[in-house]
Formats: sequence, structure tokens, C-alpha cells
Amino acid sequence: MGQTLTEKILDDHLVEGELETGEEIGIEIDQVLTQDTTGTLVWLQFEALGLDEVQTELAAQYCDHQTYQFDFKNTDDHRFLRSAAGTFGAYFSRPGNGICHNVHKENFAAPGKTLLGSDSHTPTPGGLGQLAIGSGGLDVAVAMGGGAYYIDMPEVVNVRLEGELPEWATAKDVILEMLRRLSVKGGVNKIFEYTGPGVESLSVPERTTITNMGTELGATSSIFPTDEKTEDYLARQGREDKYVELQPDEDAEYDDQLTIDLSDLEPLIAEPSMPDNVVPVSEVEGVDVDQVMIGSCTNGGYEDILPAAKMLEGRSIQPDTEMIVAPGSKKASEMLAREGWTAEMMAAGVNYSEATCGACIGIGHVPGSDSVSLRTFNRNFEGRSGIEDDNVYLCSPEVATAAAIKGEIVDPRNLAEELGDMEAPGFELPDAYEGAENDIITPDDPVDDDLVKGPNIGDVPLKDELDADLEGEALLKMEDNITTDHIIPATQDILMYRSNIPKLSEFTLSRVDDSFAQRALDSDGGFLVAGENYGQGSSREHAALCPMYLGIEGVLAQSFARIHKANLFNFGLLPLEIDAEDYEQIEQGDDIEVVDDVAEAVRSGQEEFTVRVNDDWELTATLDASEREREILADGGKLSHTKKKADSGSGAPADD
Amino acid sequence: MGQTLTEKILDDHLVEGELETGEEIGIEIDQVLTQDTTGTLVWLQFEALGLDEVQTELAAQYCDHQTYQFDFKNTDDHRFLRSAAGTFGAYFSRPGNGICHNVHKENFAAPGKTLLGSDSHTPTPGGLGQLAIGSGGLDVAVAMGGGAYYIDMPEVVNVRLEGELPEWATAKDVILEMLRRLSVKGGVNKIFEYTGPGVESLSVPERTTITNMGTELGATSSIFPTDEKTEDYLARQGREDKYVELQPDEDAEYDDQLTIDLSDLEPLIAEPSMPDNVVPVSEVEGVDVDQVMIGSCTNGGYEDILPAAKMLEGRSIQPDTEMIVAPGSKKASEMLAREGWTAEMMAAGVNYSEATCGACIGIGHVPGSDSVSLRTFNRNFEGRSGIEDDNVYLCSPEVATAAAIKGEIVDPRNLAEELGDMEAPGFELPDAYEGAENDIITPDDPVDDDLVKGPNIGDVPLKDELDADLEGEALLKMEDNITTDHIIPATQDILMYRSNIPKLSEFTLSRVDDSFAQRALDSDGGFLVAGENYGQGSSREHAALCPMYLGIEGVLAQSFARIHKANLFNFGLLPLEIDAEDYEQIEQGDDIEVVDDVAEAVRSGQEEFTVRVNDDWELTATLDASEREREILADGGKLSHTKKKADSGSGAPADD
Repeated sequence: MGQTLTEKILDDHLVEGELETGEEIGIEIDQVLTQDTTGTLVWLQFEALGLDEVQTELAAQYCDHQTYQFDFKNTDDHRFLRSAAGTFGAYFSRPGNGICHNVHKENFAAPGKTLLGSDSHTPTPGGLGQLAIGSGGLDVAVAMGGGAYYIDMPEVVNVRLEGELPEWATAKDVILEMLRRLSVKGGVNKIFEYTGPGVESLSVPERTTITNMGTELGATSSIFPTDEKTEDYLARQGREDKYVELQPDEDAEYDDQLTIDLSDLEPLIAEPSMPDNVVPVSEVEGVDVDQVMIGSCTNGGYEDILPAAKMLEGRSIQPDTEMIVAPGSKKASEMLAREGWTAEMMAAGVNYSEATCGACIGIGHVPGSDSVSLRTFNRNFEGRSGIEDDNVYLCSPEVATAAAIKGEIVDPRNLAEELGDMEAPGFELPDAYEGAENDIITPDDPVDDDLVKGPNIGDVPLKDELDADLEGEALLKMEDNITTDHIIPATQDILMYRSNIPKLSEFTLSRVDDSFAQRALDSDGGFLVAGENYGQGSSREHAALCPMYLGIEGVLAQSFARIHKANLFNFGLLPLEIDAEDYEQIEQGDDIEVVDDVAEAVRSGQEEFTVRVNDDWELTATLDASEREREILADGGKLSHTKKKADSGSGAPADD
Repeated sequence: MGQTLTEKILDDHLVEGELETGEEIGIEIDQVLTQDTTGTLVWLQFEALGLDEVQTELAAQYCDHQTYQFDFKNTDDHRFLRSAAGTFGAYFSRPGNGICHNVHKENFAAPGKTLLGSDSHTPTPGGLGQLAIGSGGLDVAVAMGGGAYYIDMPEVVNVRLEGELPEWATAKDVILEMLRRLSVKGGVNKIFEYTGPGVESLSVPERTTITNMGTELGATSSIFPTDEKTEDYLARQGREDKYVELQPDEDAEYDDQLTIDLSDLEPLIAEPSMPDNVVPVSEVEGVDVDQVMIGSCTNGGYEDILPAAKMLEGRSIQPDTEMIVAPGSKKASEMLAREGWTAEMMAAGVNYSEATCGACIGIGHVPGSDSVSLRTFNRNFEGRSGIEDDNVYLCSPEVATAAAIKGEIVDPRNLAEELGDMEAPGFELPDAYEGAENDIITPDDPVDDDLVKGPNIGDVPLKDELDADLEGEALLKMEDNITTDHIIPATQDILMYRSNIPKLSEFTLSRVDDSFAQRALDSDGGFLVAGENYGQGSSREHAALCPMYLGIEGVLAQSFARIHKANLFNFGLLPLEIDAEDYEQIEQGDDIEVVDDVAEAVRSGQEEFTVRVNDDWELTATLDASEREREILADGGKLSHTKKKADSGSGAPADD
């Protein structure tokens, strides 16, 4: 039986498991990327591993989210990230050099390679045949330490493209059509593999718009085969040596299939406030538009901004519509400036920004109250723009620009007819991707060889291996349904300390008991006790990391939320299930002792543990964990586990 | 006796008083400007006047401070300002179009005219012979309502320039030399008039760098005569019709005089953290530099950025030094982009920003902790950059750029010698100032004809004329030395409501008694009682406006701070001085009644007032006020006073 392209790349990188849908597999990671909001913790975790240098073929650190540097903490983060990249051997892209996905695509993305990134839009270079997956920061740190990345083998879905895009329809409309059909949940645990005769009609930047926004389908990744267009794209970057021909086998079998005829597409738009709320632009014409923004990792490339610039040349935007262009990379920005397009856009009334993620995540250019904003971004979740009750529409640069010219939503085909002299701008690649050559600091020529930590950057502790004995006080007894927001509140005043675990830990469970953190620090070890569904809510790793920092050894709960339980394993905290009667009987302050040889019991697969309370009575607790989870837990969490493997030379092989 | 240039312009605009140093004069205002952090209140006050349109020849509203729009309140402010400009007949410069002083200089500044602006660097167009003064927002609102601007006639100081600037010395070094000699207090109550043979060697943009930063001397204004250079500058803007020849009389007498020989100057730098902390750059060579910023109203023009771009062409900045260029205007930015300089700067490693005040006031690009930032701005007060304990140096674009190339402070003459191939860039004007033509909305073609107020924009009440009777409760009795920070705290969480007087008023005197605001609102009038030195601290008008909004009628204090007392008159609150014994005897909650016919007594110049307390005992209080202050107070404050004059047709004459 033939293989899909996804299977071929996974097979090439497989270090554990088999490629059967739903089964856990471990894969080697070739490249990693991080950005500035997730990167600080990644590097602090990597530092805790104690390794001298990054073990992947390539690691790249970008500074793209907080580039306006509103606070010295942002600037300090960037300086720390530069120093970490220099110290440990990663590329460093300077603040203002652009969005990680754009800059990675322009400089490092390579067909056939695996890429793991601590950003949800990491799948972007799937458009040139790279298998790229977004993950939590801990997984990235582990991969940089040489550890494999574990994932349940996703379904592979064949998206067969036929025909060619008509004038004014764009790659953005392809992915909006996918969202219209499949919804924002339609891609969960799936990889979308684009095939069919329509593929060759799309250039690589168009393909990456589609793979980038596959994330909004909930997909694990999206990928295109490689072809002459891919080779040509790499050649324009001076990187033709990275080209590898990659196609699925002709008899590959897919878990599912759908077909999109590109020639049927028309300009689409996602209405507020969900990316799958998609309708033809023509259905919402006439809505007054206050703000238009072009940019983001979805549509911030040279090729995305150029059509907008062409449409604006010699024209002006409506005086009551603001238009902001934030290029995805400085390279794109420099090319546009060099060719005169930047001046043209400014002349039309555009506010031309530095290269940044910025407004896409609510940082800058927040819409006014009771206003409408059209954006070429990938998400319009309510409030994401920085104001509640926002009205954000998602569309192509062409649709966005048409709205700026008209002052209201208009199908660009109708605007072209109205104006009489506006041609469809088409889609054009630059002859050569040249510019911003001074904005990436290479690991061969770093400017730092030691970590520079501002006052808001702390350390991440490593936990020791589990001991035979585990004993301590029941430091806090909680009710049912304690959320990760209870454990670590996500308000801005608290999350600003996300790179400072000692400081952040002071807020641990403060919404339940604000004396807890200090008591935990003072007590040298201890347990949490909770009712049903402990740890429900977000996937935030801090909800396990901070209790670990405070010395918590384990949690006795009636039941655990799935993702948080995985995080407890990852940070070396023993999650034991107890029954309702025992839960009732334990009091805060009781002395808890796990009677078994804990390390031995965890490693050996033992499920039932005897817990002695106050040296007075006993209960039976259950550990429900896979073999890999037990190993991680016994080693003191995923970082310690990775360190141990690296120290013993049994990390993921450097060459597969 | 001949006249100084200052006297000539003042004479032309005089509506009250005589031009004798220290005497109060009233002058007609031809032009006003406001920006986005002060402008909202200006327009709310203007709205309260009830006039249909602005009475000055020209009013211009700029959006330059909060252009990154971090919060919907910023964006709503901009929308409100646009609507106010449209409704009342002002020019509106869109967010992103640049800094008020730069855009005003490029579009509206005119020799011989008076300009009043609610920004401290309003004197900038003194460089082309305009008499421009910065003031509080209320004065601008009054001027827009046709009222005169009152000021004590400043000393006029002759700054005689001789010689010509040598290579690598710049206009920035002229004003740094002034600061070195005179200190930041050296210009208080003075207007600096530049004369002498050195004037003609300086172009208008160089002159405006000097007049702009005269503000750091504490000066009321700074002004240059006009000449061929002025006419040429205006011609390049297509505004040669605005040219007027203006020179002081040959026998003009000045209050003071100093001489600067331009040919003696060398590159200077202001060390942290005061603009007068000036030394030759050569004395501080070798200091590592983390950040370099070029921009601001002092050095953000086309002519200021061009030398930096020339120095950077074909070179690159140090990888561990960040360099941000934020143009002062979009026109400058568009010209630089059109000529290819923007691309050159990006290639060298510059992070190229939108046109904004931004970092100069701590909004964006905040330096990292324990770092050094070289900026071409005008102020380096500690903490102004957004981080306490900052190390901000002020210098010319040439010195800043040299530091970015070298990674440390270096005299550009020495760097030129070291590099061998770097020529002094000189100072060059564009052939024509063209660009950003779509970013100013004219009063003839506005996009709004009604005010658009977001949820954070309130109203400003007008106070009625003083009545014969004045009576109410002593709502709050305070100690000595109550500051304006006690009255209205200046913390960001409170000042974000500066455009929302009803909301802001809730915080009035909350640091003394947090029940006060509600009690005042409930009580329908009342008095404040205080000890010595009431209202010391800042000049903030809100400290009088908010009590007025809450219904406070007057303040009985042992003594008043000077500026706050003026603000009490301006907002129609009766400031009565009482003696220590009476102060001791009054209790909070007492009933206070001014026995005299208050309106009549205030207008007639009566100094002693009888105050009856609890219908039980009496004290004598004193009103110390000028005739003009009495008139303003009796009319219900400056706004009501202006409205009354405008309604009766006796405002400042439209044509003098």
C-alpha cells in the first residue's frame, strides 16, 4: 500500500510507535522555532536541562509579538532571548525583523524536514512540503534537548484541488472555503494534505496562506507536495539546495477526502466573531468599515501586500476609514520600500507599521468601540482584537483594500466595475527575496555567550527523580472543579510574570487561599487534595510548573481533567485518584504518606497505592498512567527525563 | 526705540495691556493646535462653550501620542477628535500622519502669526518666524472661542549667532550648547530671539530644532527672523504666499543678550537624566549602547533622518544595538521611502516605525533594564522612557547613528576617521515637500458633522454665573499641604479617564476621604476647607475641574498654591483665605454661608468677605484676585466667561 506524503515524512522521522491512526508515535524533530511570548520559558526550561547546545539541526528564536516594547519587560525578554540563542546555538531574529512564520519561511523552511514550534501557526511552511506542528513550549524545549516529539498519529485527509482560481479569488478564499465547509473543529486530530491538479496553479506563498490558516480548522498540520513551483520559490531565496521532491504515492490511502474546485471560488469573508462564519463578500456589501488592516502570518508577505499596493496606486482610501499595513517581515517591507510601493501606500493614506504580529493579538491598533474592522488575519475570536464586542471580519488583502477604497465592505469585482480602471492585481513573486540581511544573528557569529536575565526573568527548577519515600502535609483541601484559572490566574497583571516562575508562583491557588504559596514554600514538600475534575480549563503548563516550584509532590483528587493530568506528569507531580469517602475524611493539615516504594511502584506499573493519613488510617489511591507517563513521572518530569536521556546518550538520535 | 521681533508680533496682536516686561498682556491668537492626549478635553470644553465653530483663523487637531492605539480608548479618542474637528471647523491630521509640530510646520506654520498649542513644544515654528506658545488646554479652548491669551510679558533675550557650523556639528548642538550654558531653568519667563550673522547659515528645519527644544530651557518661546531661507522653505512646501519678512529693528533693545559662535561648536550630548547635563561627545566615548532612536518633534524631519540614512547606506548597525527610526511625519516618511532611503535604512538593520511621538513619551520601545539608549529627542528626565533608572542620552541624528554603527558612544568625527570612507552627511532639504496628501482632512470637506463619543468620553459642564447667595456644607476639612495628587491622583489607572470628567470626578480627593465624591454629588453645593498651601504640585486643571463638576462652590484655606489658585478662578470656584484660628474652629459638616452679595462683591473688587458658620458665628475671609480674575470668577469660570463674551459679540476681534 502506498504512503501519503505525511506518512513518508513521519516514517523518515519515526523513533517510536507505528503509523496507525490514533496510536502514539514519537518523531525526531529537525527544526524548532519559538517566539517572544512563549520563548522565554522554553529557554529557561532548556537552561534547566543543563545542555551546552541545541540538539536539533536548527533552532530559531523570533521576536514578533511584543515588538512595540510597551514595557521594559518586553525589551528585557528580547535581550534574554538573544542571549539564549547565542549561548545555546540558535538563530536570533531581531525585534522588528518580522513574524516567526514569515521569517522562517523566507530563511529556513525546508521540504521533508520536521518543524516543531511554540506557536499555533507553526504549520505555515507546510506550503513548501515541511511537516510543521505547533506545540507547547515544554515540547519545544525537550526537542531542543534531543527528545522526540510524541503525538497520537492523526488522520490524514486528502484535500483534492481542481481548476484554477478566477480573478479576485485568492488563496485566502481557499482556506475560508475549507472553514465554511468543515468548521473550526473540522480539523481536530487531522493533517490536511493538499493534492490534485489545482496544486500546481498555486505559488508557494499562496500555499502557505492555506497551510497557515489550517490551524483555524483545529488541524494538527497541513501540507502540500513539492514541485517546480517549490523549487522556483527556494531558488528566488537563494536556497535551491534545500529542494527535495516530495509527493504522496499514487496509491496512497487517506482517512478521508474532499474536493475543492478552485474555479468555483469567489471572494469570501468570515463575519464576526469566528473564522468559520464564512459568507461570500457580496452578501455583506455595504457595511461601513472603520479600520482595515493588512498583515499577519497569513497574509503579511510581499506577495500579499503587493496586490493591495497596486490597488491603491494613484487612489486614496476613504478619509473615515483607517488603513494600517503591518508587513509580516522586514525583508518583505524592505522589498516593497525599494520598489516604491511603500511610498505609494503612504500616499494613498496607509499608516505603514513596523513588521510585527501586533494587532492580530490585540497589541496595538485596537478597534474603536462599536466599530467594524476588516483584517487579513486568521482569527476573529470575540475580544481578540483588544476590545470586547468587537466586529472583526477576516478576508483577503484584495477584499480588505477594496473596503478601504470604498469605505464599506464591497466585493472587489463590483468595485472594479464601479471604478472602471482597477485591474485585478494578480499574484506576483519577487525576482529575488533580498533584504533585512542584518537582522538575523547566526549561531556561528553570536553577540552573546552568556544569559542576560533582567529582573523579571527567573529560573526554572528541575525536579529530582522520584524517591522511594513520599510524605508531607495536605497543604490545601479544595472542592470540585478547580480550574487552571484558580491554580494560576490568567489576568495580565499576573501573567506578566510568566518568565519569572518564583514570582509567578506567589499567585499559585491564591484565589482559593492566598496563604497557600508561602505555606507551601515553608513546608518543604506536601500534597494538594481536591474533589472531582481537578485542573479543568486551559492547557497552561504553569498550573503544574508553579506547584512543582513550590515543592508540591502530588495531588490526591477524586478525578483529574485530562490535559492538566498530562501536565502533572510532565512536571513530575504524582496524580493519585481517591474515592469520595476518603476525600471527605482527609482534612487540610493532615500528614500524608505514600506507604509503597514510590519510585519502584511508579516505574513497575503498579496501579494501586496505599496512602497513610496522620499515621492513623489508610486509603487506597489509584495511578492511571501509560508506560511513558510513568517513566517521565519517575524521572522527575519531562525535562528531567529528557536530561537523563541526553546525559546517558540515549536521546533522540542526531541523525536518523 | 526700536522693537524686537517678538515685540512687533505681540504689538500686532495686542488686545490688552502694554508690552512691559512682567506686565500682563492679552494677545489675539491666529492659530491653535492640539494633540490627542490633551485635545479631547480641549474639545469638550469648546463644546461646553456652545459655539458653532472655531473662531481662530486656523485650528488643527493632531493624533500623534497614542498612535499605536493600545486600547480602544485611544482609538475612540481619535474618532472623537476627528468628529470634533469636523463639527467645529478644524483641520484633522489622521493617526499615523505624524507629530503635531512636524505636520504643522509642513502645512500651516506662518511667519508673523500667533500660535497657541496644548503641547509644550508648540514653539517649534518659531524657526520660521511664528510666535508660538504652549499652554494648558483650557487656554486653547478659550482661544478657539475667540478669547485672548493672557500672559505676563516675558523678557526678550537676544541670542546672537556668529559663524557657521563646522562639519558634524548640527542645530541640535546649538540648543544643547544653550542648555549647557543656561540650564533647564535658564529660559523661564523668557523669549529667546535669535539674531546675528549666523542665522542665515541655518536652514529653517535647523532653526526649528533650536526653537523646538527651547522648551527645555523653560522658555516661553523662541523665534528666528525670516529671510530668503524662510521664503525658500515655504516655496518648497508650495506655500510661498505665506512668506512675510520679519526682522527686529536695528535699534531694538533686549532684556539680555548672549552670543554663540557656531564655528566653535562640536558634537554634544546630554547625559542622563536632564537635558542640560551636556558634555562633548568625545568625553563619553566608549559607553556601550543598547538602543538608538531617531525621531521626535526635535529631530524627526526628512532633513534629520536623511543624514542618518546616508551614514547607514551600505553599512550595518551593530548586532547588539537596536536602532529604531520613527519619522516625525508621514510626509517625511513617504519622501524618504520614495527616494529609497527607507529601504537602505532597513537593510542596515533599522526597525522603521510609523510616524509617532511614541517612545519619546514612554509609549513603545521602552529601554531594557540596566541599558543605555541614545535618542535624538528633547527630554531625558528619569523614567520618561517608560522605565525607572533609565540611562537616556540626547544627541543629534549623526551622533546617534554613529553609536549604532559602532555599538558604543563615539564622536562621529572619530568614527569617520576610523572608517575612512564615511563623509559628513551635511544638511539637505528636499526639492519639494510632497506626500501624505490624503492624511489631513480639511474643515471644508469634513467626514463628520456631529460628535462621536465612545463610552470613555464624557461631557464638561459649564458653571453658571456667581449668584448673590453662596451657601453649603463644609464637605471636607483637610490638613496643610494638600497636593494636586491628593485632589486628582495622576496614576495611569485614574488618568485614563481624563476625557471622562464624570468618571474621573469619582476619584476626587479619594486619597483624603473616599466617600467625598459621592457626598459632594449628593449635597448640591458645598465648600472645601484646608490648611496652608492648598493645591501645591502640578498645574493639572482637573484638580479644579473635578471639584467644580461635583458642585463645590468655594475653598476656604489658610493659603493657596499659586497655580492651583489660578485654576480655581478658571473653573469658577471662590478661593477665600481664612486665618489659622478660624480654620481650627470650622468643623467638617458645618454650614457655611457667605453673607455678602457674592456676585456683586467679587465684581466690585471687595477683598474682605463675611462668612457665617452654622448660623452661629462669623469669620472674615479674604479674596486676593486681579480684576480679570474677578471677572472670570464671577462669570462662572474662564469657559463661561468666554462664552458670555462670545455671545455678546465682544470676544477677541476676528481681525485686529
